[in-house]
Amino acid sequence: MQGTDKRNADFHKTIKKLANNQKIEALKSLLKELDPVEIANSFIHLKLKHRLTVIGLLDVKKASDVISELQEFEPILEEIVKQMTTQELGHLIEEMDMDDAADVVGLLDDIHANEVLDELKGEDREGIANLLKYDHESAGGIMNPQVMAIKKEITVTQASAAIKTISKRKDIEEFYVIYVVDEYNHLIGSVTLPQLFLADRNVHIKDIMDPDVIAVNVDTDQEKVARVAKEYDLVSVPVIDKHLRLVGRITSDDLMDVIFEEFTEDLGQAAGTGKEEVLEKSILKASGDRLPWLILGLIGGGLAAWVMSGYETSISQIPEVAYFIPVVAALGGNIAIQSSSLVVRGLATGELRTMDLFNRAWKELRIGILNGIICSIILFGLAFWITGNLLISLTTSGALMVVVILAALVGTIVPMLLKRGSLDPALATGPFITTTNDIIGIIIYLALTISVYNAQVG
Amino acid sequence: MQGTDKRNADFHKTIKKLANNQKIEALKSLLKELDPVEIANSFIHLKLKHRLTVIGLLDVKKASDVISELQEFEPILEEIVKQMTTQELGHLIEEMDMDDAADVVGLLDDIHANEVLDELKGEDREGIANLLKYDHESAGGIMNPQVMAIKKEITVTQASAAIKTISKRKDIEEFYVIYVVDEYNHLIGSVTLPQLFLADRNVHIKDIMDPDVIAVNVDTDQEKVARVAKEYDLVSVPVIDKHLRLVGRITSDDLMDVIFEEFTEDLGQAAGTGKEEVLEKSILKASGDRLPWLILGLIGGGLAAWVMSGYETSISQIPEVAYFIPVVAALGGNIAIQSSSLVVRGLATGELRTMDLFNRAWKELRIGILNGIICSIILFGLAFWITGNLLISLTTSGALMVVVILAALVGTIVPMLLKRGSLDPALATGPFITTTNDIIGIIIYLALTISVYNAQVG
Repeated sequence: MQGTDKRNADFHKTIKKLANNQKIEALKSLLKELDPVEIANSFIHLKLKHRLTVIGLLDVKKASDVISELQEFEPILEEIVKQMTTQELGHLIEEMDMDDAADVVGLLDDIHANEVLDELKGEDREGIANLLKYDHESAGGIMNPQVMAIKKEITVTQASAAIKTISKRKDIEEFYVIYVVDEYNHLIGSVTLPQLFLADRNVHIKDIMDPDVIAVNVDTDQEKVARVAKEYDLVSVPVIDKHLRLVGRITSDDLMDVIFEEFTEDLGQAAGTGKEEVLEKSILKASGDRLPWLILGLIGGGLAAWVMSGYETSISQIPEVAYFIPVVAALGGNIAIQSSSLVVRGLATGELRTMDLFNRAWKELRIGILNGIICSIILFGLAFWITGNLLISLTTSGALMVVVILAALVGTIVPMLLKRGSLDPALATGPFITTTNDIIGIIIYLALTISVYNAQVG
Repeated sequence: MQGTDKRNADFHKTIKKLANNQKIEALKSLLKELDPVEIANSFIHLKLKHRLTVIGLLDVKKASDVISELQEFEPILEEIVKQMTTQELGHLIEEMDMDDAADVVGLLDDIHANEVLDELKGEDREGIANLLKYDHESAGGIMNPQVMAIKKEITVTQASAAIKTISKRKDIEEFYVIYVVDEYNHLIGSVTLPQLFLADRNVHIKDIMDPDVIAVNVDTDQEKVARVAKEYDLVSVPVIDKHLRLVGRITSDDLMDVIFEEFTEDLGQAAGTGKEEVLEKSILKASGDRLPWLILGLIGGGLAAWVMSGYETSISQIPEVAYFIPVVAALGGNIAIQSSSLVVRGLATGELRTMDLFNRAWKELRIGILNGIICSIILFGLAFWITGNLLISLTTSGALMVVVILAALVGTIVPMLLKRGSLDPALATGPFITTTNDIIGIIIYLALTISVYNAQVG
């Protein structure tokens, strides 16, 4: 496949070699043959010095395309942008789509950002400054304010002429949906470009437009925007302000970036790492992102140790009890993660709602009981084989059963409660839920096994 | 925001009430007002009986749209489709896009599928049967073979006429990119619809087309297709066969579905659950999907118990050693998950390659040492506070250090090796890696602490 073959080619090695040997003309002609995506990808493996050399050798248009592509590798982009002069940045930004430009300016500190904005023409400056007001992860923050809009009373012929004018004036080259607005710029409908293309020339826009508008507000979270686009199969999502006026659009390529970004964040939360860490160069920062989850584990483990110290005499009399602490803790954690991650996914896709709490908990409970029975039988066998002690084996597997059922319930209920309390339910897919269940599991296990054992033996 | 407000509305309750009270006319008029997405969403909360009633009340066009929307809820779709007659299915499928139709037919067993295909017209039957040959998760399996292609020698005026004819003949209503092919149907370029729309009428296609073709092969995995589309910002990805002939296209709305599906799969792997489980009705099936990971945990825990049984005398003499087994196991598991999930993500996005193994391992090692030092100091404090025993506290925190460093290395190296061996590296984000590190951690911890303690005390 062409896309991936190109990606995997080692362009960065050739770039590095040419740059180190001052073969500037050869480097220039190599860069001319690479497309912006390929150049951006090679940056992952290049040093800052070489990245800046490459950017310096590109013409303004291509350099701005490379910068746009680098947005998904934010730490790299930030490093480069901070090394550029205000003038250089101004030139690049003028060539970019307004939404991309705003993202680049957003990486700078306030003083530097204002200097760059001062380099720009009035319309661009205003548009970008306007976009910077919105939250980085909201519809307003990712939308492109350059949008194609027409009135419903005109004919297809008139619309075609209008579109050509708008395209030239606003420099819009990609538009697959044309929005229909009233005289106050309220969004009232849409026509796809193919519809317009296929329609009879004298038909009026109002007769071919789809009045069932699907739009998002400037404040809508980007993840919700992506979900709306996916659900309604939209190639472009219109963005409206609080007065229902059309203020921008978000195209499907930007939404794909959003989906990748959000899922990476979810996976990071499940693993207890930072979200952009793959490219993070600083060991200290990477360590700091991960440490809170480890300390949580330490505190949980400390609690477990403290509980166990209360059973000191029993453990030295019946050390077999200690053998099965790891397996009880591990299974409690695994089962809680299984339940919670399904609930979190269901809540995220809308397949589950917090109102379904009771049904879901009931279902997880039944799965928990079933898996608990099977695991308990296996553990009984293992325990009897290792200790040869029937009583220990029976109490251990009985305690596991209780721990498993409880873990299934905790894994179901915690994310639902987080969601109801307007917190991110994905918190419950990571170290938080495993640690909680480790401790609960160990306490229940020790309390049950030791008290049964003592009752029988004593 | 309109999209989500609608989604969250409780249409399923009204539908249920109207259906149960035999208010068929009212139900019909409600359904007329809902769009296919909303009807499909309501199905999540309806019983099979009511879903079939709803499908029966819709006209063929809308019913087929609802069926297409239900594809992301495969278990629901499968239930419905299996209840329908061959004739009913045939009528619905005729209305659908070929790629959606093939997915529906793919849900049936071979005999039933052939009966449905026999209901169709020659062209549809052949097209769908052809699509069914490809792997469900390959480009061929998700592509739409109905594609808009023109020759490079014609003018924009001629192209417009050709497109209108093709659109009518092949019933293609959505096309944002028009592909350019030679006389053998080899893909040689593309023109976007806006480009064509804005071009002068007498210009030739070869003068406005983009000859830098980005295409995927029919065998390309759907996840790779999505990555290519994201990287090159494509609204539609052309699919070619082994002779480089254009055989279909994949549009961005289908790719969004792919991305959601693949990430759900990854999250499922990290949690040790089945991928479509949220909507799974069968407790037995859900249990079976999760059980292998739990049994893995049991075996690992059994091994740990067996190792500990070898230290029986030491544990009954110094029960304090047992207290810190859970915290050592938990931290080893957490750190391995942090390292492995970053490596897996990096490999998936292409930001990391298996060649980078040494660099990455070195970076993870340094993060591991840093976090290991911090955690060891905290654990020393905790251990001394709980046991009041300096020697135990020192050996425990020293052992943790070793376990943490080893876990960081295992978490980095295992996914890279899986990838090199052409296995799915995501296997290393779930219970597999935590269990492995639990056992390694416990063995190292016991061996170190007990031997140091015995050497000192004995």
